[in-house]
Amino acid sequence: MNDHELWRELGQQLRVDSIRSSSAAGSGHPTSSMSAADLMSVLMARHLRYDFGQPDDPRNDHLIFSKGHASPLLYAMYRAAGAISDDEMLTFRQLGSRIEGHPTPVLPWVDVATGSLGQGLPIAVGVALAGKRLDRLPYRVWCLTGDSEMAEGSMWEAFEQAAFSGLDNLTAIVDVNRLGQTGATRHEWDLDAYAVRIRAFGWHVIAIDGHDVAAIDAAYVEAAATTAQPTAILARTEKGRGVAAVANQNGFHGKPIADAEAAIAELGGERRLSVSVAKPQGNGTPHRFPTSGELRLPAYEVGGKEATRKAFGDALTALGSARGDVVALDGEVGNSTYTEEFAGTHPERFFQMYIAEQQMVATAVGLQVRGWRPFAATFAAFLARAYDFVRMAAISRADIVLAGSHAGVSIGEDGPSQMALEDLASLRAIHGSTVLYPSDANQTAALVPQMANRSGIVFMRTTREKTPVIYAPDEAFAIGGSRVVRQTDDDQVTLVAAGITLHEAIKAADALGADGISARVIDLYSLKPVDADTLLAAAAATAGIVTVEDHSPEGGLGDTVLDALARASLHPPVVKLAVRIMPGSATPAEQLAAAGIDAEHIAEAARALARSRVSA
Amino acid sequence: MNDHELWRELGQQLRVDSIRSSSAAGSGHPTSSMSAADLMSVLMARHLRYDFGQPDDPRNDHLIFSKGHASPLLYAMYRAAGAISDDEMLTFRQLGSRIEGHPTPVLPWVDVATGSLGQGLPIAVGVALAGKRLDRLPYRVWCLTGDSEMAEGSMWEAFEQAAFSGLDNLTAIVDVNRLGQTGATRHEWDLDAYAVRIRAFGWHVIAIDGHDVAAIDAAYVEAAATTAQPTAILARTEKGRGVAAVANQNGFHGKPIADAEAAIAELGGERRLSVSVAKPQGNGTPHRFPTSGELRLPAYEVGGKEATRKAFGDALTALGSARGDVVALDGEVGNSTYTEEFAGTHPERFFQMYIAEQQMVATAVGLQVRGWRPFAATFAAFLARAYDFVRMAAISRADIVLAGSHAGVSIGEDGPSQMALEDLASLRAIHGSTVLYPSDANQTAALVPQMANRSGIVFMRTTREKTPVIYAPDEAFAIGGSRVVRQTDDDQVTLVAAGITLHEAIKAADALGADGISARVIDLYSLKPVDADTLLAAAAATAGIVTVEDHSPEGGLGDTVLDALARASLHPPVVKLAVRIMPGSATPAEQLAAAGIDAEHIAEAARALARSRVSA
Repeated sequence: MNDHELWRELGQQLRVDSIRSSSAAGSGHPTSSMSAADLMSVLMARHLRYDFGQPDDPRNDHLIFSKGHASPLLYAMYRAAGAISDDEMLTFRQLGSRIEGHPTPVLPWVDVATGSLGQGLPIAVGVALAGKRLDRLPYRVWCLTGDSEMAEGSMWEAFEQAAFSGLDNLTAIVDVNRLGQTGATRHEWDLDAYAVRIRAFGWHVIAIDGHDVAAIDAAYVEAAATTAQPTAILARTEKGRGVAAVANQNGFHGKPIADAEAAIAELGGERRLSVSVAKPQGNGTPHRFPTSGELRLPAYEVGGKEATRKAFGDALTALGSARGDVVALDGEVGNSTYTEEFAGTHPERFFQMYIAEQQMVATAVGLQVRGWRPFAATFAAFLARAYDFVRMAAISRADIVLAGSHAGVSIGEDGPSQMALEDLASLRAIHGSTVLYPSDANQTAALVPQMANRSGIVFMRTTREKTPVIYAPDEAFAIGGSRVVRQTDDDQVTLVAAGITLHEAIKAADALGADGISARVIDLYSLKPVDADTLLAAAAATAGIVTVEDHSPEGGLGDTVLDALARASLHPPVVKLAVRIMPGSATPAEQLAAAGIDAEHIAEAARALARSRVSA
Repeated sequence: MNDHELWRELGQQLRVDSIRSSSAAGSGHPTSSMSAADLMSVLMARHLRYDFGQPDDPRNDHLIFSKGHASPLLYAMYRAAGAISDDEMLTFRQLGSRIEGHPTPVLPWVDVATGSLGQGLPIAVGVALAGKRLDRLPYRVWCLTGDSEMAEGSMWEAFEQAAFSGLDNLTAIVDVNRLGQTGATRHEWDLDAYAVRIRAFGWHVIAIDGHDVAAIDAAYVEAAATTAQPTAILARTEKGRGVAAVANQNGFHGKPIADAEAAIAELGGERRLSVSVAKPQGNGTPHRFPTSGELRLPAYEVGGKEATRKAFGDALTALGSARGDVVALDGEVGNSTYTEEFAGTHPERFFQMYIAEQQMVATAVGLQVRGWRPFAATFAAFLARAYDFVRMAAISRADIVLAGSHAGVSIGEDGPSQMALEDLASLRAIHGSTVLYPSDANQTAALVPQMANRSGIVFMRTTREKTPVIYAPDEAFAIGGSRVVRQTDDDQVTLVAAGITLHEAIKAADALGADGISARVIDLYSLKPVDADTLLAAAAATAGIVTVEDHSPEGGLGDTVLDALARASLHPPVVKLAVRIMPGSATPAEQLAAAGIDAEHIAEAARALARSRVSA
């Protein structure tokens, strides 16, 4: 067999195996796999550089299936490469199998989970940025995308960022099979429609017949030879290619082939071709950035005032000096989040993502694929823009830090569009996440380096306003800890707060003390994991708990406390103070008062609790 | 004064007033207002058709500030139009003022809240779609966008949708002032960079000097004369135009002018021009769709099986027959959400949004601006893609229904990328939201028409799998209610569930009954608002509560129960069963078991609770 014959045969094998695995599973997407089979055949046979025995080899290329539902094709490639056995391939979608319905990094050759369309290409941009700007290695990033997902705006954030960054190490392979889940795509087989758009965004574009192996090969050669620009290969393909009963017909999305045996026969039967995917060559030493060694965190004078967002920026900059693997990203608000300090000190490790929060999180996910430790920052409210990317990042087992500033009504005059009031709820609900909400600048600084050592999605919420510095610079604050700020032997009530409301709680405790009511005050700066023991001790010792948060009543600090108590079967009275109104514009102090979460409201709630104890 | 002189003078007045209001507030964005002042001057003086005395006139044009931070400019226009007084304008950003930091519909002339960039244009597309396809009225939609927000992918979803729908009633006015918050935008003053992109997406594009009133006027004339295509006017402008101390300089974003008095003098001083904005003319009767009158909801036989997602689609279709104002949107998964039935029966009122969830929610928000009742559906997991749009929709006081199918691990083999496990938490946290999670097909059908009558963000979570039909077709289910499915006079434990887990709870109750343990079972189909009374009665009557949900442990059904109990100062033992693992692929039954939320795990938790009561 000559090369072309071999590639065509391999393409047929990938089709057959896509049918076999999805038929064994009774579900899956064989037709979406079959359209791209020739594209992947030629890629793995001649262009991909990858050592399946050493998936962590820094020289390896990266192959990301943005169209994650074509997982049967990916697994068929792994089988052809000898990475998995035929038997394992046929465990597709079974309980306990690594061969999941959509690819996840449970498999060592999968960089990131895909299956939420429009995310693979943005993440591929992140990996390619790592190659160009951080690792400084010549690996290539290949991304197989669908045509349906071109409707996702995130794809265009990716096209824009990739061209702007001159990512000639990135190739998007667009499988234009014309058919989506329910019918034809917007542009069907109008390759020009895609070409003019992607070219307008600054890419080199090649349009081909996606079943012509010679044309595919030539396109990959041209992509690899293209400099200063990423390349998009627009491949006209047929969904279900090769099986007349389904080829290029609507109604067969996400379904096994009805008569698999006949379809396999039509494709020429099962094959046992194996492909020796070329291993990467040459230098494999990623660039390392020089460091100053010792971590010198910023220190703030007790009794002064500083915003936790500023302390975050200061500490991140210090961490970047001590650790060369720490990188920062921002959504064009670096003078608000204070990543501008990191950008100034460590410009090579700063990524300006402009106002594209989805691409920002995707880039962070892509950078951590290569072992970098990204901190991505914007207003906490605008992290909501990337919520699906955060959700998928957890499935990708990604280790990323998200920093959200300007939390809550206490931002003041800007009004509700800029206020994060749902961030604690939405980020606590992410599997394996860490949620921090520091109250003080020194505490913030102490937590920042720990975030870089933690697995999963690590979120820190910071405050716009300057707040009193109450902890000494050398105090230790662990993730999962808390701090009892006020305590006596005969506390009557407990106030639990974090961030800006801690300072209101302290003022409330002062007012209560003047009334003869002793209040314990707990700084619950770590919401997930939470220091249940301290809460339980307070519950046991006092008449009840007032929780207070600059956040929606649902899913935030108050619910964290209720959950911790319920788990311990402790059930004291708990009064939740939270933002139950739709705020407008006002000063920070007016906002806290209007929302019922200032010192006065806290004291009032605590007095009622203390009275109920007396009367009980 | 001739027209051009008048327009220039009005532009200067808008600048002066933007400075005055932001200086009075001590915050705000005068420089971002000043760049667009001439664009808005000419618009309001000659092209806008709007009756400020009758903001609900269906013939009115719509003006949406996608760059919501330019609110001082918008308020200066209102003042020039005589809609607000100078005094009210100067209450900008004060407590209780309608003149908020970013525009919200607290003002009757503001359609939607903006301030999260990249949302105004997608919503404008929705309003323009209402004009073309539903109202069938000739009003125009004008949308002022910034250049920074071009980085948001959602803008490109909007450009794509608008051209695909031939929205020649839509004009985007792009204020290319070159400077973002922290520095220059990606493309600075390269109007061609924008032109080639937007033109590639199918728009008519006009590039002008945004301070040349004649060119602006000509561009609006050309936009209005353009058919079959939307028009984008790319206006090269100077941020801070007219004040040398700030004009076209970095570092003055979002800050009042330091020397306001000198700046106002430089602009020629205060003016008191008033503009009679032209009122709309002609026919003002929106199209109305014929209806069948009576609502005939689908009925499912008790003892049969049906998926709640299917019942949703059936009921929505029936509702559409009875109510001509109900419209449906889908993210290209209509054969999964069953909006395909609505699309088949009411094709004129169905909006295929392709895989662009942000644009889907934005369109829904735009359609409800004109009084239509949109139901937008996709997999619940993918609503996460539009979370910031949902957050902003609440601030817009929008009335929209979101339907999310395929919730939880019980979808089975597709794996975690397709599973909504954070949707209850994230949507409960939205201000004023309603969160429903029906357990049965007839119950689903009964709730659908109520959703169309409810204010705010109304979310229904549905299940992929067919589940037993347990309620009769004529049973009533109110939003805010619950249903006690099993009850005796001596219940020992309470099981609270919803959706697919209700059926597991019923099986668990059967198993417990065989052990001599009587379990009350509550179907908590309405999570927000919640039927606290039924929960409290159960808490008082039984040894404890087991909650079970196909969702993350944070912010879902269990936390809803804990919150309701805490508010009533009732504190029974509560055991929360939820999805604490990262799922893979498996059958629905295997998934429920692996996550510890199937009948067996529920019964086990209930037995432990009952035992603890005995031993206590």
